This record gives sequence, structure tokens and C-alpha cells, in this order.
Amino acid sequence: MSGVIVTGPPKADPKDVDALAGFGVATVGEAMGRTGLLGPGIRPIQQGVRVAGTAVTVLGRPGDNLMIHAAVEQCGEGDFLVVTTTSPCTDGLFGELFAMALHRRGVRGLVIDAGVRDTQELRETGFPVWSRAVCAQGTVKATGGSVNVPVVIDGQVIHAGDVILADDDGVAVVPRRRARATAEAAAAREAKEAATRAAFLDGQLGLDRYGLRETLARLGVTYRSYEDYAAEEVGS
Amino acid sequence: MSGVIVTGPPKADPKDVDALAGFGVATVGEAMGRTGLLGPGIRPIQQGVRVAGTAVTVLGRPGDNLMIHAAVEQCGEGDFLVVTTTSPCTDGLFGELFAMALHRRGVRGLVIDAGVRDTQELRETGFPVWSRAVCAQGTVKATGGSVNVPVVIDGQVIHAGDVILADDDGVAVVPRRRARATAEAAAAREAKEAATRAAFLDGQLGLDRYGLRETLARLGVTYRSYEDYAAEEVGS
Amino acid sequence: MSGVIVTGPPKADPKDVDALAGFGVATVGEAMGRTGLLGPGIRPIQQGVRVAGTAVTVLGRPGDNLMIHAAVEQCGEGDFLVVTTTSPCTDGLFGELFAMALHRRGVRGLVIDAGVRDTQELRETGFPVWSRAVCAQGTVKATGGSVNVPVVIDGQVIHAGDVILADDDGVAVVPRRRARATAEAAAAREAKEAATRAAFLDGQLGLDRYGLRETLARLGVTYRSYEDYAAEEVGS
Amino acid sequence: MSGVIVTGPPKADPKDVDALAGFGVATVGEAMGRTGLLGPGIRPIQQGVRVAGTAVTVLGRPGDNLMIHAAVEQCGEGDFLVVTTTSPCTDGLFGELFAMALHRRGVRGLVIDAGVRDTQELRETGFPVWSRAVCAQGTVKATGGSVNVPVVIDGQVIHAGDVILADDDGVAVVPRRRARATAEAAAAREAKEAATRAAFLDGQLGLDRYGLRETLARLGVTYRSYEDYAAEEVGS
Amino acid sequence: MSGVIVTGPPKADPKDVDALAGFGVATVGEAMGRTGLLGPGIRPIQQGVRVAGTAVTVLGRPGDNLMIHAAVEQCGEGDFLVVTTTSPCTDGLFGELFAMALHRRGVRGLVIDAGVRDTQELRETGFPVWSRAVCAQGTVKATGGSVNVPVVIDGQVIHAGDVILADDDGVAVVPRRRARATAEAAAAREAKEAATRAAFLDGQLGLDRYGLRETLARLGVTYRSYEDYAAEEVGS
Amino acid sequence: MSGVIVTGPPKADPKDVDALAGFGVATVGEAMGRTGLLGPGIRPIQQGVRVAGTAVTVLGRPGDNLMIHAAVEQCGEGDFLVVTTTSPCTDGLFGELFAMALHRRGVRGLVIDAGVRDTQELRETGFPVWSRAVCAQGTVKATGGSVNVPVVIDGQVIHAGDVILADDDGVAVVPRRRARATAEAAAAREAKEAATRAAFLDGQLGLDRYGLRETLARLGVTYRSYEDYAAEEVGS
Repeated sequence: MSGVIVTGPPKADPKDVDALAGFGVATVGEAMGRTGLLGPGIRPIQQGVRVAGTAVTVLGRPGDNLMIHAAVEQCGEGDFLVVTTTSPCTDGLFGELFAMALHRRGVRGLVIDAGVRDTQELRETGFPVWSRAVCAQGTVKATGGSVNVPVVIDGQVIHAGDVILADDDGVAVVPRRRARATAEAAAAREAKEAATRAAFLDGQLGLDRYGLRETLARLGVTYRSYEDYAAEEVGS
Repeated sequence: MSGVIVTGPPKADPKDVDALAGFGVATVGEAMGRTGLLGPGIRPIQQGVRVAGTAVTVLGRPGDNLMIHAAVEQCGEGDFLVVTTTSPCTDGLFGELFAMALHRRGVRGLVIDAGVRDTQELRETGFPVWSRAVCAQGTVKATGGSVNVPVVIDGQVIHAGDVILADDDGVAVVPRRRARATAEAAAAREAKEAATRAAFLDGQLGLDRYGLRETLARLGVTYRSYEDYAAEEVGS
Repeated sequence: MSGVIVTGPPKADPKDVDALAGFGVATVGEAMGRTGLLGPGIRPIQQGVRVAGTAVTVLGRPGDNLMIHAAVEQCGEGDFLVVTTTSPCTDGLFGELFAMALHRRGVRGLVIDAGVRDTQELRETGFPVWSRAVCAQGTVKATGGSVNVPVVIDGQVIHAGDVILADDDGVAVVPRRRARATAEAAAAREAKEAATRAAFLDGQLGLDRYGLRETLARLGVTYRSYEDYAAEEVGS
Repeated sequence: MSGVIVTGPPKADPKDVDALAGFGVATVGEAMGRTGLLGPGIRPIQQGVRVAGTAVTVLGRPGDNLMIHAAVEQCGEGDFLVVTTTSPCTDGLFGELFAMALHRRGVRGLVIDAGVRDTQELRETGFPVWSRAVCAQGTVKATGGSVNVPVVIDGQVIHAGDVILADDDGVAVVPRRRARATAEAAAAREAKEAATRAAFLDGQLGLDRYGLRETLARLGVTYRSYEDYAAEEVGS
Repeated sequence: MSGVIVTGPPKADPKDVDALAGFGVATVGEAMGRTGLLGPGIRPIQQGVRVAGTAVTVLGRPGDNLMIHAAVEQCGEGDFLVVTTTSPCTDGLFGELFAMALHRRGVRGLVIDAGVRDTQELRETGFPVWSRAVCAQGTVKATGGSVNVPVVIDGQVIHAGDVILADDDGVAVVPRRRARATAEAAAAREAKEAATRAAFLDGQLGLDRYGLRETLARLGVTYRSYEDYAAEEVGS
Repeated sequence: MSGVIVTGPPKADPKDVDALAGFGVATVGEAMGRTGLLGPGIRPIQQGVRVAGTAVTVLGRPGDNLMIHAAVEQCGEGDFLVVTTTSPCTDGLFGELFAMALHRRGVRGLVIDAGVRDTQELRETGFPVWSRAVCAQGTVKATGGSVNVPVVIDGQVIHAGDVILADDDGVAVVPRRRARATAEAAAAREAKEAATRAAFLDGQLGLDRYGLRETLARLGVTYRSYEDYAAEEVGS
């Protein structure tokens, strides 16, 4: 794996990125038909932060952060660094010094399918991170890899220039060409949720709002009083 | 699995529920002879909250929250929603809209052996949740299940109407008929702990307070000076 | 396993312990050549605390905290309790009462390769804990073990008297005889990091600062424009 | 947890047990409406064995096999030993000597939510075992527990006298009172599967046999030629 | 997720598939520059089988095998079924009846990122399977999905028509257009390994054959006699 | 981590190694007071093999097998290769070519806290392996490490020259200086087990043979008829 550093990939339109940053990860996942979400193992090291940016991707080897150094040079205003490794790794590939260099370049945050360290400093400086692990274990700079090639985390393919959106619920990946349509769908979804919120506050049930009583009946789900149910169980 | 929705199960007496809410989960677990506790994999999404209520149970299928909608209608003042799935699932079956509907009905909180989403909103609105995972992945409403049948989480059987008590240490399940006796045993336990606390603050050792020096001697545990121990190790 | 309680082990010099407490766990791990770190599974129950002390080690059996009682008596000013079990265990072996007794004796904190409970109280009283799990499950006091023998957590051997340093990134173990040298190496490392921080703030890249462009070239990593890269992929 | 040893529980009728032994675990799980199955973490140590018996249950503490000794006396012809612990445990609680004692008493096999050892000897002597782990780690005989109380493995409640059926696919639990009805349902299921097998061998598709083309249409699943699909993807 | 069933995707040339079947998974992974391999969690249910075919991909929902039925119709001579789910799932989505239907159509085997059942029957009939889990838990046929769209397992993107190669070491995915070149590279690799094997049998060391003594020296790895090493350790 | 290759470490006496090879891993673990055992995560790739040898230890980095090449030269007749990595790794660091080189030098087997590949070939050539994972993923030869320094697997410290004993139950480590005493203790243990086996075959119960009825009584474990127990449960 000699590796390649791809320069100048096309990126999602900043206006679409900013539009997407106005929605939660769960809403955007719904807007994409329940796709595009990383799994529950990638967690934020901070609380209450939502941010979006365009992916600069890194594929390195476990225990080696050489390619993150190469990626810094490819990062600019509005980007979101995305780091993976060729085999599972929990070492702390990323820390405060990287965050400072990226922050200076206008990078919005980091998603890493590995470990991070200097987490207290990262929280204090306000550089947001979503990672698989927190681990002080350091790394070498000895083996090659790639920057801005497609990478995969939790089954989601991420291309350079895709939109990364992250908050307390996790991380969503919106393909570059679908950024605008997804932002529009998310807005529609949010409007629908606002109406549902109002209806629920007014006392309406999801059973009625979504027509689920019919679904339950079709599926053969029945209502039983506790007395009938308990009597049958004892007799069984 | 057609499923059944059991209505009107008997519930623990609210006075006993409130009494139990005055104790920590660890204390109540001790008061039940070290039983009734869910495992360390069910974690709170907030910090510093302790709450108790009567269980409304949901048994659904992975990736499907239809039966939570059915359960909302069965929930009332002082209840605690308990959600499980027939196979392991980390999808976000529960979010802000459900929390609002439940909050309005006086429900105290949620325990879910699956994922939740909208966690920032849940923390802001003060609806407490204990879950297996945080995950933005959404769900369908396509397959049946049951409400208020016995369910099992981490090996603990939970019946509708049982008391659920949860805090930062995890979740305890107190069978409905044992609620009063458990509250009394917890009070006794707490009094004993208060005395131990005072004794420890006064400098007494657990070895002496609990008569453990005799236990150590009976088990053949011996005291050795570091010099003797180190000399023997080198010679071995 | 009858067990032995070793008394009076030599301890790292308090001055060296205090010196080490001035550095982060990640820095000290680097200063030891990227060794001495526990893995990412041992997590703090609080945030923003860094503390160091000399190890008092406990090797007990799963679900049994008898030997922690025995260890309390061996603990004094500046110590750091380190608890392991002979087989994996997530039960809550340690809680508030132990913390009070240890706090009174001047103990700095706890690292436990098992579970803790009373976590809200522990946070409130300011006794810092790093643990494998949070779990309310209680324990017995029925089987023997050892105090101040060498123990192993995540592959790191810990001897009584070694320095334990812990913060939000995890836990480092510094062998007693290497405490001073490690503190000195950490100071040197930190000075170097300060210079790098300044250089990064000034816009220098890690690629240049560490001479990594040569490394990339030697490893055969090449730069490609997005257009060339995309054209080749489609043709493949 | 002082514990209790329950003697003389009612057991499923041996004829029903033998009838159930004629079906696979998967078939019996279907016959019970896809319930009653332990999860994929309980695996056989041998291959190609299917066996059924009536449960004698053990609830012990981790790392302690005292209660298995107590259970041996409660075991007789046609029983199936079921062992769990109050907290997770992978120690080897069970080995060759236990197997010999049980074999002599006519016990059919072991399901254990913990570890076993002497696995080569167990395979050679033909005593079948389904376990969570294989581990040589030995145990103490120091703490109490219970025999023939209800226990839970992977969310399934198992009562003394229930039928345990196990094969290469895992383990099923059939409640005592449902043994006969389940055996009958399994027979019906197997007849249906035989017809399906013949139809499939004859070339019929599940899509047609189960009327799933309508389901696909109702769900909005559409057919697209590769050319159309590829053209659209590139344009997206 | 309405889903789409893509028909008639281009497939790797059967001659290349057969050529690849002549090499082990590890060799092919090396021939692709150490890429294209699924992780260690996907294991064979049989031993000693190596097989290759062209991928027919299935993306279904957890606990639902409707789309496998849809995929059977798309399968033909020389194909290899590849099944994934939108969220993690260990249920037994696949069993003997499917295997018979596929076997009749000339399908070579199954890779499934979920569970299988009827494993004894599958082994007896000689239909090879690589799966994440073995589990008797059955499924519904209630929710939509897709066939022959790109899927991801363990971070590897698999397109319909790609070559799947599997043996006791795991599973490799060779992109359709790289099948011939990979088979050639694998042949070259194997020739090289044969020469190395002969050299090793002749007593040559990898240190010399690969020029690694220089690497060790460059990295600063030194040789020390045990006496020197032990003396230094004691003094440290 | 520049690393060091320690040459000429003292080794356990071959007679003691051969004596230990006459016992099972479980028996030897008991003979060492239930210590010295690796955990259940290290599994054999073959079945029915028991073997012992003297440890040659390797500490490498994840995804890199350079130091295994260095270790081969240090291996000789009767040795047992023991490989660990500085961070968790499941890549296939070891395969058939290494096995041939080691087999030729009289090495008895491999324990590796990482992955292996070429498992079918390894089984065919009869070189026994115990590993954390099976994985075809290959490795680089780029970073340094150490040979014959103390390493740790599953909390067990292993020194060069210690005895490694492995069978279907797992792996035991016997410190070099305790090899003879352990072999003697294992022989005594086996004699005791033979007597117990005869007694069990004769129908004696462990409850009587080990005096456990008294233990049960002391612990407060009571006997209850099913009728009494069931009546009380219903009333509770």
C-alpha cells in the first residue's frame, strides 16, 4: 500500500453545508431515508456541540499518524477531518497539537475511527471530536497511506468533499451531490416534526396521528385486560 | 409473534415508589440481597438524576418502534417506560417526540435495551433516559410486539407495575409486591451505612468493624514485610 | 490462592510524584517511549481531574471486596489505590464508604479493573476514580487475595510503590525507580511540544517540521490531482 | 443471597422431551413463535450433537462452583443441567469430573452461561456442553446460591423442569406446560418445511411460494435494470 | 428505504473467478496490496473449504429475510450470495431451505454479516457459509431492502459482480475489473512464496532473505546478551 | 521504542517441560494455585493437541511482523513462540512460511495475542497455534520492537524461558524456576483427581467428598420442597 494523496477534490457547496448544520444528525438521517449514519461506537468527547464541514479523508495504518500530517496540508476553511485505519486501532492518533494546526486552518472538527488524546485540552480549546476511543497511547510516523481517497466507517462510504454533520447523537455523512436535496428534505422533515410536536403537546397519540391502530390490527396485535391475560398465563 | 397489549395491570403503590426514590440504586440492590440490578451496559444519558416509577413494558422487534407508540397510550402519571427488543438492537428507537408525549402524561423516565437519539434535546427538556446506546439511526413501524408482558433486560425479569429506580449507578427493578418491604430494608440499610460512615470518618477500619481480620486468618491470608516478600521472590 | 498482604513496600519519592502530576498522561506515556499506559477501557467517572500517587495494589476475586478492606489499612498519604481481580468482573466493588475512609487517609484516587458504584456521591466528594465499569451490583467478603503484590491491568505490570498518574485520557504507570527520569523526560517533551505548538500556531506544517515529506517519498506515497485520480478510477 | 435448593420440581413429560429431541432447535424456535432461544454467544464445544432434557437450574456466583455440587444430587435420568452466575463469568466452572458424575446419573448435557474446561475429555466421553466460553481457570467453593430456582440466560427465563433442546445452532427452552403443544407445532412446521423443500427442489421460488411479490410491491421495492441503475448513480 | 432490485449486473469473467479460486484468501489479499479483506469476525461454519464466485448482494433490515428471497431469483451459476443488514443483526436470516434453492441454481456459497441456522444440515449438504454468528433465531418477511446495490462489510465495499473468495482464513473481495490482474498478481506472489518456502526449508532466515538486518539497525533495535540485559533491569 | 533483542536467556529444564506436557492446562493451572492461565479469548486453531515448550517472546507493533523475523533466529529445539503487540491487533501476523521455518528449528508451537492466517495449511502441517483471531490481513515490516523481553497476555507476565503449555482449554504459563515444583504439584493433583474420579464413578457426591454440606449450612443455604417454594412465591 504505497498510497496516494489526492489534491483538490470538489467539495459540497458551503451554503449547503451551512444549511445542513441547522439540523440534527437524526433529522438528516431520516431525510436520507435512514441511511448515511455512523454507528453508536463513534462518540463525541464533548457535549452539546453540532457542527458540519466537508470531508478531508485519511486512510492510515493502525498506530501510525503519518498520513494525518499529510492531510493537514490538504485541509482548509470549512473542512472536517475524517480519519480511518486499515485495521482496527484504539491508539491516540490525534491530540492537541493537531487540533491547533487544524483550528488555525479553519477546520470544523474531527471524526476518527480510532483513539484520541489530550481530550481535556481539546474540550478547552473548543475543537470538537467524535472518536471510537479515548487513549493516551502514542504512535509512530513510519508507514504510508492515503489522503482524500474514499474511506469506510461503520459501513458508510465517505468521499472527500462529502458533508460531515455531527452532534451528540453521532455522525452523518451526506454525499456531496445530495447535499442540497438533503438539506431541503431535512427542512421538510423538521416542519413535519414541528407539527407532530404541537399535536403531541395537544395530547394526540402517535397511534392516531400515524394511523397505527390499523397496522396493529393487520398484524394481529390484540388488546387484553390484565385479568384475562393473567388468568391465561397461570393456566398455561 | 402477533403480540398482545395488556391493559390495566396492577401497579406498585405510589407511596412505596416515592419511598424507594429516596434511596440510591446501589442501596436498593443491597436491600434486595444484591439482586434486581441491570448490568453496566445500560447507562444514563444525563448526570445527577435519580428517579423512580412503575414499569410499562414494551417488547418490540429490532429497528421497529411501533409498539412504543402503542405503549404511550398505556402510560400515565408516575410510570416508567421500559423498552426491549426480541434481538439485540442499537438503533435509536426513541427520541424527543416520544419524550414530549410521555412527559405530558406524567411519565418519569425511560429504560431502553436499545438506542436513543435526540439526546441533547432530551437532556434539555429534562426527560431522563437510561439506554444501551446512543444512535441516530431511525426505525420503521412495521412489525408487531407486546406491551405490559414480562420482559427481560440483563437477566432481570420486569413485570408491568414493578418499580423501576434509576440513577447514575444504573437501574434497579423492585417487584411490585416487594416494593414496601424493599423500601423498609433500604431505610435500614441506609441507617447502617450512616453509622459506618461516621465510624469510618472517626478512623475505624472495615477490617475491625466487620470482623474481617478473622476472615483473613481463616482463609490463610498472611502478612509479610516487603523485605521478606522480596527476598523470597528473587529466590523463587 | 491463600494470598499475602505485603507491608511497607518502598515508594516513589513524593517529590517525583508531584513532579509527574504536572504533566498529562499522554506526555508521560511519550516520555516513557510509548509504554506504561492502561488501555481505553479504563475510564474516569469525572471530568477534568489530573492526579498522581503511589500505588497500593489489590488482587482480589471477582465479586468480592474483602481485600480492598485489607488494603485500606496499608494506604497512607499520597497513595493511589489500584484494584484488580483474578478474572474479569464488572461488579461495583468500590463505593462511597471506601472513598471516605481513603480520603481521610490522604489517598489520591482509585484505579479499578472492575466496577464502581455511588458515582454521583464520589463526584460530589471529589474522590477521583478510573474504572472499567459503573455498576450498582454489590459484593461479598468471602475469599482471599493479596495486597501490594504485582498486578497487571491491560498488560501493564504495576508494583506497589510505582507512580500512578491519571487524567481524562486514561492512566499511566511509572515504575518507582524510573519516576525521576520520567519526570525529567516529560519536562523535556513538554518543552519540545511548546516549541511545536508555537511553530504550528505560526503556520508551520508537521510535514516540514518533522521532515516527513522525505518519509512519504521514501514510502512511495505520491500526490495526484483529483482529476487524474478520478479518471483512473473510472477506467479501472 | 443465602440461597435455596428446591427439591422435587415437576418436570416435563419424558415422552414430550423425546418428541422434541426429534426436531432441530431452529424448528422448535419457529414452533414457539420465534421465542425461547438463547443467543449466539452460547456455543457447543462439540459438533453434530442434538439432545434434549429437563432443566435442573443452578444460580451461583462468578468463580464459584459450590452450587453445581449441590445440583448434582438433584439431577437424575433425563435431566439437563443449566448453570448461570449472578454476574458475568468466563471461568471454567465445569469439567470432566462433574461430567462423569452427571453421566452416571443419566444427565443428558450442560448449558452454562460461563466457562468450561477439560473440553477434549468432555468430547471424548461424549458429554455434550453448550457454554459461553472455554477457559481453564479454576474456581472456589466458598459462596452460596440456589438450585432449581428460575434463572435467566440471554433474556430467556428457565424454570426447573422446562425442556432444554440443544444442537449445533444453539439452545432452545420450552416451558414445561408447553412441551406437548410445542412438539406438535414443531411436527406441523417440519411437515410444512418438507413440502417447501420439495417445491424448492422442483425450482419454485420463495417469492412465489410465500406470495412475496405482492409484499415487495406494497413496500415500494422496484426492479431496475443495471444499465438504468448505473446511469442514475453516475448522474446523482 | 423503499429499495431496488437491480437486474443483470455485469459479472467478473468466470475464467478469472476460477483462476482466483486457485489461491488462498491471504495470498489474494497480498496480491491486492493488503486490501479487500473482511475482518476476523466473519467465520466459516465448515473447515477446509475454499470457493470463489461472483457477488449477488443483499441489503436487508435486521431480523428480516424478505430480500434474500428476492435475491434468490437473481442468482445463477457461479454466483456467491452476499448478505448485509442496515443495522447489526445476529439472527439466523439464512438456513437449509435457502441453501437448497441456491445450490440448485449453481450458487457457490454465502457470506452473511448476520447469523445463520441449520448449520449441521448446511455442512452435510456441502453448501459453504461464512457468517458473523450462528443463531437459531428466526425472522420476519416484512420490510423492504435492495438487491445488487453496493454493500459494505467490515469496511469493504462489495459491488454486484465482484469476485468473492473465501476459505478458512476468511473472505476476500476482488473488484470485477481487477479480477484478471489480481489473479496474475496472486500467481506471481505464489511463485515468490514457493521460492521463499524452499529457501526457508533450506534454513535461510527471513532476516537475511528480506534484508531485515539493515531495517533493524536503522530502527535502532539492538542485540543484548541476557546477562547484560538482566543486570541492567535489576539496577533500573 | 527502539527495542532490544535479548540473546541466550536461561530456559526451563527440558525434562521439566516434558513432565508438564503430560498434564492438561487446567490441571497445571490448579497446581499453580489457579494462576498462570491466559483468558478464554486465546483459542486453538486445531483440536486435540497438547504441547509444551520454552517461551521465546516477541513484542511488536500492531500490523507489523518484523520482530517475528528477528525472533526466528533466536528460536531452537523445544521452544514455544509467544507473540504480542503494543496495542490490540487482529491482523494475520503469522502464517505458513513462518511455521515452516520454526518447525525446521524444532519449535513446538505458537501463542499469539493477534491474528494468524494460512490456518488450513497450519493444520495440515501440524504446527499448532493458539491465537486471538484468524485473519487473512497481511502486515508490514517497518517498525521496531523487542525479542525475549517480558511480555504480558491477558494479565499474565511471560518471561523468555518460561514454560508454555497449551491444549484445547487454552494456555498456561509456568515460570521457569517453578517448572519442576509445578510438575510435581500437577502430578499430585492428578493423583487426587484420579481418586475423585473413581469415587464419583462409584456414586459418591462432591457434597460428601469435599464436606460441602457443612459449607452450605454455614452459608445459610436451605433445602425447600418445590411445593413449599412455589406456595411462597405466589404469595409474595
